[in-house]
Amino acid sequence: MTSLPTLSCPLPIMEHTTIQLAHGSGGRLSARLLEQLFLPRFGNPVLNRLEDQAVLDCPAGQRLAFTTDSFVVDPIFFPGGNIGDLAINGTVNDICMSGAMPRYLSASFILEEGLSIGSLHRILVSMEEAAKKAGITIVTGDTKVVNHGSCDKIFINTSGLGFLPIEVQISAANIKPGDKIILSGTIADHGMAIMTSRENLSFQSSIESDSAALNGLVAKMLHVSNEICALRDPTRGGLATTLNEFAAASKVGIQLEDDKVPVAPAVGAACEVLGIDPLYVANEGKLVAVVPAEIAGQMLGAMRRHPLGRQAEIIGTAVDDHPGIVATRTLLGGRRIIDMPVGEQLPRIC
Amino acid sequence: MTSLPTLSCPLPIMEHTTIQLAHGSGGRLSARLLEQLFLPRFGNPVLNRLEDQAVLDCPAGQRLAFTTDSFVVDPIFFPGGNIGDLAINGTVNDICMSGAMPRYLSASFILEEGLSIGSLHRILVSMEEAAKKAGITIVTGDTKVVNHGSCDKIFINTSGLGFLPIEVQISAANIKPGDKIILSGTIADHGMAIMTSRENLSFQSSIESDSAALNGLVAKMLHVSNEICALRDPTRGGLATTLNEFAAASKVGIQLEDDKVPVAPAVGAACEVLGIDPLYVANEGKLVAVVPAEIAGQMLGAMRRHPLGRQAEIIGTAVDDHPGIVATRTLLGGRRIIDMPVGEQLPRIC
Repeated sequence: MTSLPTLSCPLPIMEHTTIQLAHGSGGRLSARLLEQLFLPRFGNPVLNRLEDQAVLDCPAGQRLAFTTDSFVVDPIFFPGGNIGDLAINGTVNDICMSGAMPRYLSASFILEEGLSIGSLHRILVSMEEAAKKAGITIVTGDTKVVNHGSCDKIFINTSGLGFLPIEVQISAANIKPGDKIILSGTIADHGMAIMTSRENLSFQSSIESDSAALNGLVAKMLHVSNEICALRDPTRGGLATTLNEFAAASKVGIQLEDDKVPVAPAVGAACEVLGIDPLYVANEGKLVAVVPAEIAGQMLGAMRRHPLGRQAEIIGTAVDDHPGIVATRTLLGGRRIIDMPVGEQLPRIC
Repeated sequence: MTSLPTLSCPLPIMEHTTIQLAHGSGGRLSARLLEQLFLPRFGNPVLNRLEDQAVLDCPAGQRLAFTTDSFVVDPIFFPGGNIGDLAINGTVNDICMSGAMPRYLSASFILEEGLSIGSLHRILVSMEEAAKKAGITIVTGDTKVVNHGSCDKIFINTSGLGFLPIEVQISAANIKPGDKIILSGTIADHGMAIMTSRENLSFQSSIESDSAALNGLVAKMLHVSNEICALRDPTRGGLATTLNEFAAASKVGIQLEDDKVPVAPAVGAACEVLGIDPLYVANEGKLVAVVPAEIAGQMLGAMRRHPLGRQAEIIGTAVDDHPGIVATRTLLGGRRIIDMPVGEQLPRIC
C-alpha cells in the first residue's frame, strides 16, 4: 500500500462513512452525496444547474473532438497518482491527440457499496486538481452504486470534448515513408508502477506513474507546426502497439531504433527482473508524434523545452520497406519484428 | 430468465466463446474483438478510422448538449429490453430533455472475464437497432476487461452529443406558478419489469420495460411550441423525484392530481402486492413536460398523436403555495406531501 499524501481540503462530515446503496437511488441520499462531496470539488455554473445534460457553446468555425474512456485500474491508489487523476489525464490526452484543445469533461462513477467515503473524497480531490492543471471543466456526471461484490471499489468513466481548427488534420493514416517518429520521454513508467505496487515488489528507487495531461505539450508542438502527421499516447499495449497501429493504418513500415527509446533505470531494472519488455508496457503521460523529416529537429527542440518533453528522442523512421510491420535492427545486423502483443501481461492498468 | 428473441444477424465464429482478459489488452485480441464483434454492428466512417477520438463538425449557430450515463442494470436481459438498448435510449433521452436533437454517442464497455461472447453479441445487436431507431451514430468507444468477480457481467457507459437552436431554453428552473405538468404515459413499467424478473415473480399479464428513445416525441412537441419550460425523463427515483427536483429548482409548489397519473393494470397490481408506490419507480421511456397553461391543451393533443405519448395526461399544476413541495389532495380534502425517496427500494434498475 502506498502512503497517501495529506489533502488540502478536509473530508466533510457526512452521515455515513461508507457508500450505501441509497447513494445511487436518485433520491435524497444521492442528492446529498452530490451536494456534500461532488459539487464542492467540481462545481461550476454549468454543473451546478443539476440538469441531466450540459448545454454548451460551440466556438464558430471549429471542429469537435469527442472521446470516452472507462478506468478500472487496480490498485486505485498507486505511486504517482490514483484512479481519479488518471481518469482526467487519460481523457484529456485522447482529446488532444487529435490536435484539439480539451475543454469539457463528463465524469460517471460506478461505486461499490461499502467503499469508504474517505477514499472517494481523496479521488475527487485528485480529479479536481488534475482538471485545474489541464484547464478543463467537468460539466456533467452520473453516479451509480452496485451491491458489495458487484464491482471492485470504483470505476470511473470520463468522456470529453475539445475543439480544433479545421486546418489541423492529424491521423494515424497520414504517415509517409521518410517521416520521423518522436517519443516524448521514458516508457513503461505507469505500467511498472502499477505492477510493482500490486505485487508489493520494492526496488531501490521507487517507480512512479507518469500520469500527466499532455495538452500543454501538444499546444507547444502545434505552435511549431500544423504539419504533425500522427499523434498518439501509447497507453495499453505500450509503444509497440501504437507503432503497429501507425504502420497498419498508414501502410508503411516502421524502422525503430530501440536503443534510442528512453527507459528510466529503475523501470528498466524492474522489467529485467520480471522478464517484461518495456516496449509493451503502458504509459499515461507520453506521446508519439510522427512528423515530416524537415521539421523533426525543430519539433524535437520545442518538445525538449517543455517539462513533459525533456527526454524526447527521435526513435525511428517510416519506411517503404515491410509495410504494416515494425522492425528493429539486431546487433548482428538482422531484423527483429516488434509485433502486436497477443496476450495480456497485466490487466487493469488503466 | 426471460426467453430471448432470435437475432437477425448471427454470431460470428470467433476463437473464444467467452471474454478473456487479453480482449482488454489493447493488443491483437482487443483488435479482433473490435473487428469481429463491434465494428460489424456500429461501423461508420468516423468510428472505422479507429482513432482514440472522433472528430466531428459542429453545425453553425447551434449550441451543444452533452451528457453521460453508466448502466449497471441487473439482470442484463429483462422483459422489454436489455442493458444495450437501455444504454442507447437512456442517453438519447438525457440529450433530448434539453430540447437538443441527439446526434453522436460514445460507448464504453466494462466486461467481466468469462462473459459469454453470445450475450455480448446480443447486447451489441440491440444497441445497433436502438441507435438506428433513434437516428444516432456511435462515433467513439472503449473496452475494458476485468478479472472474473471484479464486475457483474457487463457495465456500459454511453455519453452523447446533440445540437439545439439558441432560442430553445429548457430548464427545471424555468417553471412559474400556473404552468401545467404533462406526463407522456404510464409510470413504473421499467422498474417493475426489472423487479418482477429479478424476483422471478409472475403476474397474469407480463410487465415489460418501457425503454424507448423519446427524441421523436420531443421533436413533435417543439414543433408545437418552443415555449416548453421544463422537460425531464423520470428515471431513477421515479415521477416523485422529478417533480421534487422541479419544485426545488423553480421554487414553486407542485399540486399533483395523482388520480390522473396513468398506471398499467398489471403494474398497479404488482406494486400493490409488493407494497411499492409507483410514483417512486423508474421509467425509461416517459417524459414530464411543464408548459404554460395557454398551450397545455394543444401540447397534450400533439403528444397523444405520437406513439410514445398516446396515454399522455395533464397531471398537475405549479402553484404559489408551498414552494419547493410536491403535494396531492387526499379524499378527505387534506394534503399529502410527496417527498423525495430517502432509501433505495430497488438498486441497479438502470
